[in-house]
Amino acid sequence: MIAEKMKDMVKNSSAIRAMFEEGNKMAKIYGAENVYDFSLGNPNVPAPDAVKTAICDIISEEDPKVLHGYTNTNSGYLEVRNTVAKSLNRRFDTSFEGKNIVMTVGAAGGLNVILKTLLNPLDEVIVFSPYFGEYRSYVSNYDGVLVEISADTDTFQPKLSEFEAKITKKTKAVIVNTPNNPTGVVYSEDTICRISEILMQKQKEYGTEIYLISDEPYRELAYDGVKVPYLTQFYDNTIVVYSYSKSLSLPGERIGYLVIPDEVSESEEVLSAVNVANRILGFVNAPTLLQKAVARCIDEQTNIAYYDKNRKTLYEGLKACGFECVKPEGAFYLFMKSPIANEKKFCETAKKYHILLVPGSSFACPGYVRIAYCVSYETIVNSLPEFRRLAEEYF
Amino acid sequence: MIAEKMKDMVKNSSAIRAMFEEGNKMAKIYGAENVYDFSLGNPNVPAPDAVKTAICDIISEEDPKVLHGYTNTNSGYLEVRNTVAKSLNRRFDTSFEGKNIVMTVGAAGGLNVILKTLLNPLDEVIVFSPYFGEYRSYVSNYDGVLVEISADTDTFQPKLSEFEAKITKKTKAVIVNTPNNPTGVVYSEDTICRISEILMQKQKEYGTEIYLISDEPYRELAYDGVKVPYLTQFYDNTIVVYSYSKSLSLPGERIGYLVIPDEVSESEEVLSAVNVANRILGFVNAPTLLQKAVARCIDEQTNIAYYDKNRKTLYEGLKACGFECVKPEGAFYLFMKSPIANEKKFCETAKKYHILLVPGSSFACPGYVRIAYCVSYETIVNSLPEFRRLAEEYF
Repeated sequence: MIAEKMKDMVKNSSAIRAMFEEGNKMAKIYGAENVYDFSLGNPNVPAPDAVKTAICDIISEEDPKVLHGYTNTNSGYLEVRNTVAKSLNRRFDTSFEGKNIVMTVGAAGGLNVILKTLLNPLDEVIVFSPYFGEYRSYVSNYDGVLVEISADTDTFQPKLSEFEAKITKKTKAVIVNTPNNPTGVVYSEDTICRISEILMQKQKEYGTEIYLISDEPYRELAYDGVKVPYLTQFYDNTIVVYSYSKSLSLPGERIGYLVIPDEVSESEEVLSAVNVANRILGFVNAPTLLQKAVARCIDEQTNIAYYDKNRKTLYEGLKACGFECVKPEGAFYLFMKSPIANEKKFCETAKKYHILLVPGSSFACPGYVRIAYCVSYETIVNSLPEFRRLAEEYF
Repeated sequence: MIAEKMKDMVKNSSAIRAMFEEGNKMAKIYGAENVYDFSLGNPNVPAPDAVKTAICDIISEEDPKVLHGYTNTNSGYLEVRNTVAKSLNRRFDTSFEGKNIVMTVGAAGGLNVILKTLLNPLDEVIVFSPYFGEYRSYVSNYDGVLVEISADTDTFQPKLSEFEAKITKKTKAVIVNTPNNPTGVVYSEDTICRISEILMQKQKEYGTEIYLISDEPYRELAYDGVKVPYLTQFYDNTIVVYSYSKSLSLPGERIGYLVIPDEVSESEEVLSAVNVANRILGFVNAPTLLQKAVARCIDEQTNIAYYDKNRKTLYEGLKACGFECVKPEGAFYLFMKSPIANEKKFCETAKKYHILLVPGSSFACPGYVRIAYCVSYETIVNSLPEFRRLAEEYF
């Protein structure tokens, strides 16, 4: 008796989640140390100590009625939003104010809020394969139509000619995710410039507004000094979706924000609607204690060196086994080519070696698998002999 | 350029919220002590000290990677769900297990999750006027049709004959809210029995499933020893939506749960779908630290005596001024008859006396106003002379 739409959703329910749940079961049977669970982007770096200190301090210092109460507006505490705006301005030479920031229940909450705000039924939302599979559900929640740009499997950079060709009068938004889940690729400033130029030209051609939604939970996870451009500086109709899930290792706490710059077309109307959407979708406001906690930890950083060590060891190890992959420059994912076209079958074979991978078809890119290396270094090191045995089945 | 649907939502944006924001502005001008803001259900009783202790203990004791990480399933920590189930079983003689409980981002999150799970477009959802205005938005989010049962303004108990007449083959759910926002009325066991009988008979007549959704953030706020029946004991297809916003004074923290009993038709399918809906709507999971905190505070209670004192003083005071109202038995709201048919005009007049009330039309019941008495006792006492001056304009 559940909704028809939900029946399909349940049937196609997240392969990532299914794998994660299976990993937990396997860990119980074989012992956690003998299962190489690369399925979920659940950070293995603890939240900085400053988060613990901040939470304890806030709890002792603040009036619980205010601290745990509803915020004055559904967009969050103004002082928190001011702190976020100032931090962005310092780092990216922007000029946001608190009013441009809306605190959200993580990036997933933020994406739902902005899509609810913008989409009319049948509006098109463009995504670049491979992409985070949840985008499909989020767009479907508001009866939008997902338009996929096929993957350039040589570089996993966006295919700009196909992008340009697929923009129509119905294109309402484009979602980009850089550093990228699942490839770890970072879009260069040149790529961002070209995306912006194409969008500006198409807006003019069709007389429409096309919003560039930058989903950037991995912004701070960039290696080898690679620069991650801040997209609002390139294209006016940019909306940033951020999460502290990875940068402060707080995925379970559901805390992030949206940036709606003044340069966005009818930004005041968008901001009012976002405030309402946050409420009526049932988020109401981002969790209040965590809002205050992230504001106190605004300059904290996660342990990038930890992920970088994993990245290098895993990448080198897999290459040595004979696997093919693009070296990731950001996030904590590595996208590896499956030795056989049917990568789901490959994932099944990997399970024999207690290796849990996510099939690329979850990211609309079959023939590849995602390896989330936000695990312990020991897991990486101990998995490599198993990856070698797995490779020997194919090479 | 925002969505058409959102344009209306913004236009008709919550009068409660608007009033609350106006109250904050007035407080800045006249001083908080001179503004009698009865607009929002923001508890004035602090969270129990046990919450503070629990949060600090959890933060010191637990591994931050697990504590702040994604939960094993989107439905929440199993040990937390077990604790909730056991507490319900102790209190209401039910036999739930952890699997029947899904932790949610407050009751607003829970309602959205269950409506997303159940509603096909144009499915009908019945509500009893006056009702919490957000139900309209929540049902609209999933393209459902809200069907209102008119108010019995003598008692504010549900009009059962009209209810029976308005159930159709398209009725998918009925939302009840007892103790009620905005009237403070509690549905008696007899009323619940009659609602259940009607639903059972109609399910049989139409060969459909009709879900009774019990939205009960105010469950523990009942006065004079009045009993609040636990609805799963009366009707199999009952789904409970709960929030700790009022019972532990944590509205900003967004923590609550759904109960999906085994007796619900196809309960396993519903549970799977709820788990998926929690994820794809962008909640992902209820905030993890707060999940653990409420589990440790499972037997804590708010200061009912505080609200009760407010209730009695306000009720007696308003009656003495000549106002008409039904004495509330639960929640922290009093629903007062406006001396003039146009209650919005009455609310405007009340503002002259720095009294902020919410028009009944926000609850689909014009001619009345809601007074949220979850304020300080001083606010109640000091407001009464102003209510008297207000009354003198009419009586």
